[in-house]
Amino acid sequence: MDTNRMMSLAALVKARDAGKARPELMVALSRDAIARKDGRIRAFAHVAADPAIQAVGPLAGIAIGIKDILDTFDQPTAYGSAVYEGYQPRVDAAIVDLARRQGATIIGKTATTEFAFLSPAPTVNPHNPAHTPGGSSSGSAAAVAAGMIPAAIGTQTGGSVVRPAAFCGVTGYKPSYRLLPATGMKHFAPSLDTIGLFAAGVEDVAMLAALLTGRDLALPAAGQAVDPASVRVGLYRCAQLEDADPAMRDALSRAADLAANAGFDVGEIGEPDALGHARDAHKTVQDYEAGLACGPDLARYRDRLSPILVETIDRGQAILPSQYDAARRLAKRGRGATRALFGEVDILLTPSAPGAAPAGLETTGDPRFNKLWTLMGTPAINIPGFRDAAGMPLGIQAVARFGQDRRLLEVAALLERAFRA
Amino acid sequence: MDTNRMMSLAALVKARDAGKARPELMVALSRDAIARKDGRIRAFAHVAADPAIQAVGPLAGIAIGIKDILDTFDQPTAYGSAVYEGYQPRVDAAIVDLARRQGATIIGKTATTEFAFLSPAPTVNPHNPAHTPGGSSSGSAAAVAAGMIPAAIGTQTGGSVVRPAAFCGVTGYKPSYRLLPATGMKHFAPSLDTIGLFAAGVEDVAMLAALLTGRDLALPAAGQAVDPASVRVGLYRCAQLEDADPAMRDALSRAADLAANAGFDVGEIGEPDALGHARDAHKTVQDYEAGLACGPDLARYRDRLSPILVETIDRGQAILPSQYDAARRLAKRGRGATRALFGEVDILLTPSAPGAAPAGLETTGDPRFNKLWTLMGTPAINIPGFRDAAGMPLGIQAVARFGQDRRLLEVAALLERAFRA
Repeated sequence: MDTNRMMSLAALVKARDAGKARPELMVALSRDAIARKDGRIRAFAHVAADPAIQAVGPLAGIAIGIKDILDTFDQPTAYGSAVYEGYQPRVDAAIVDLARRQGATIIGKTATTEFAFLSPAPTVNPHNPAHTPGGSSSGSAAAVAAGMIPAAIGTQTGGSVVRPAAFCGVTGYKPSYRLLPATGMKHFAPSLDTIGLFAAGVEDVAMLAALLTGRDLALPAAGQAVDPASVRVGLYRCAQLEDADPAMRDALSRAADLAANAGFDVGEIGEPDALGHARDAHKTVQDYEAGLACGPDLARYRDRLSPILVETIDRGQAILPSQYDAARRLAKRGRGATRALFGEVDILLTPSAPGAAPAGLETTGDPRFNKLWTLMGTPAINIPGFRDAAGMPLGIQAVARFGQDRRLLEVAALLERAFRA
Repeated sequence: MDTNRMMSLAALVKARDAGKARPELMVALSRDAIARKDGRIRAFAHVAADPAIQAVGPLAGIAIGIKDILDTFDQPTAYGSAVYEGYQPRVDAAIVDLARRQGATIIGKTATTEFAFLSPAPTVNPHNPAHTPGGSSSGSAAAVAAGMIPAAIGTQTGGSVVRPAAFCGVTGYKPSYRLLPATGMKHFAPSLDTIGLFAAGVEDVAMLAALLTGRDLALPAAGQAVDPASVRVGLYRCAQLEDADPAMRDALSRAADLAANAGFDVGEIGEPDALGHARDAHKTVQDYEAGLACGPDLARYRDRLSPILVETIDRGQAILPSQYDAARRLAKRGRGATRALFGEVDILLTPSAPGAAPAGLETTGDPRFNKLWTLMGTPAINIPGFRDAAGMPLGIQAVARFGQDRRLLEVAALLERAFRA
């Protein structure tokens, strides 16, 4: 399918502001695209029958898909689980309310894995329906990739924004922890759960982030961009890199070359031991917190949850507080090491995933390149632009210091251009 | 009324384990007490018609009241708001699930102010029904004080555990931030929202905390208690102290004397400027986050929320991200200063509130002595034992370093004994 025809949020806003598109028409474009394409892609868990279209607001006419792990007052919210089928929250999640306050149309709920964990959604990869779209924000990534909507909201606890974005060839931005509010999401591991954004390109997620937060995150006008020579870009040599697919290792190496050609100050940087240990601690932190946050579901619905989820919650509840505390200490030391690392470089480049989207729909892929940064709370973004021999997208992940979201987005915009050239 | 007849959780457990009380009888005691007393006290928003009584578990037979800001799958949850009247969550809040997993009986939902903010619950103070019980955990504190239940769960975002505990003359323990899981509470300001415990005495909250967390928090056996001479207790001379009621200032001074008599190493310690600034930053952090977390309620139910809540959410939404960031920086500096402070002392003593419970039910009192410690995430506990001229309880607050909950509880147990002697 022609996934190159993604909808650009920025272009739609520009057309609207120039009087060339009315909000009703813009939303109708998305509704038509969903009607034509979603039978195959299955990106939506629910499509609004008669979505509210706002006449004014910076996001008027922008149809946004909301991962079905986030509450919506006007659409059912099933958290990817039969247990919650038909559940109708009374109020929106905070991030949904923010989008509506800016004029957006909530066009539907995008498919999520069960409780945003591992059991897959029915969604397929728009680039090849025999391949996973990634998870857990499967529908958000696929709906943007297939050109059905210009933007979607997702969440990441391990790698659930950056990985599906990479597999589907879209921009997926996981902001600094708590930059976007998480109230009203079905929590899995609260100290990790992070709201993220999907769109066609970096300009689009930057514009969306700026509008949702009221922060100075939109890209600067042409000519005011950051000077690449002032940005130290470090190719991050973690141990995981050795096991990545050859095509991905090649893409990363080409990405570094293209960044250097674009004028960035590119080097290599090794992984401090403390960060290797922190990555290993992610699972304990996640599972222990899932034992608490999803314990109430296990108590009521053990027989109706997937075996892998039941096993994970059970295992989480068996983790001792002392083990959790030890993992949290490793995470804290990792955050110290991360600060030190970002004294040496401004941006890290890593794969977004070990390779392209694996064939098969039984698993959603491997978060090994993502979960460390979720635990560290640092902003991370998937930048598409590469493909493997079969034509499947390969994503490069850029990471910046906690709170340096503006810089990450600026640099990512320049890298995106370099990768596409 | 005879508020001295509080139910002791530890004594009930002891009686049960000695074969002197069956769980059914223990719960029946609470049901009878509620039936006799709650018409006057109005501590309960809902009483379970036929509460599940578990035969086994360390908390079997212990009837626990749950602040009605926390979800329960088997009882309606109204968050103190007409908007949510009759709302029935599908699953428990995580802390409720933990209590059930230990065998507890969830006997009812205790009254909360609207969204755990300022608009009062109908609850009266058991020591004098013309006085406020404090808020926002009004029902939790009053139900324990009136001898209806041996334990209750509450939440604190400003001073909503320690203050009502002080006004009602019970033990109220706000643990270190995130020691108890907050998933399934109606959030107001997520970075401040903290789950807390109410019971008759320090031994009771310590036993409850140990069972809910699986941590080593229960008081040591007699003879193995901490040596008071090794504990540096600092009477905390913050500026707020000057404006406290004379009776409270007198109680604090007597508390320090009694602590010294009990063998503690008692001194005075001034408030670092950074902590004064952090206290001032609490409101900005709280209101900004409430603008996000309660924005969805405002969007749907503006006309059905109280004027003060609407005004606060509106004001929160008008706070600039830069103002919020500045307040968070002050909080961060405050946490640094708090760590330094706890290099000089082990335990701080302050009033739990400016005085005894004020007359009238229109307001729930002043959190000025609590909100700093909520923002710092440090554990804090109300220790009763003093009274004003009218016989109303005056509470002393003890505060320890983040994560030093065990030490706080041990010291509080010794202080409780000293104050009562």
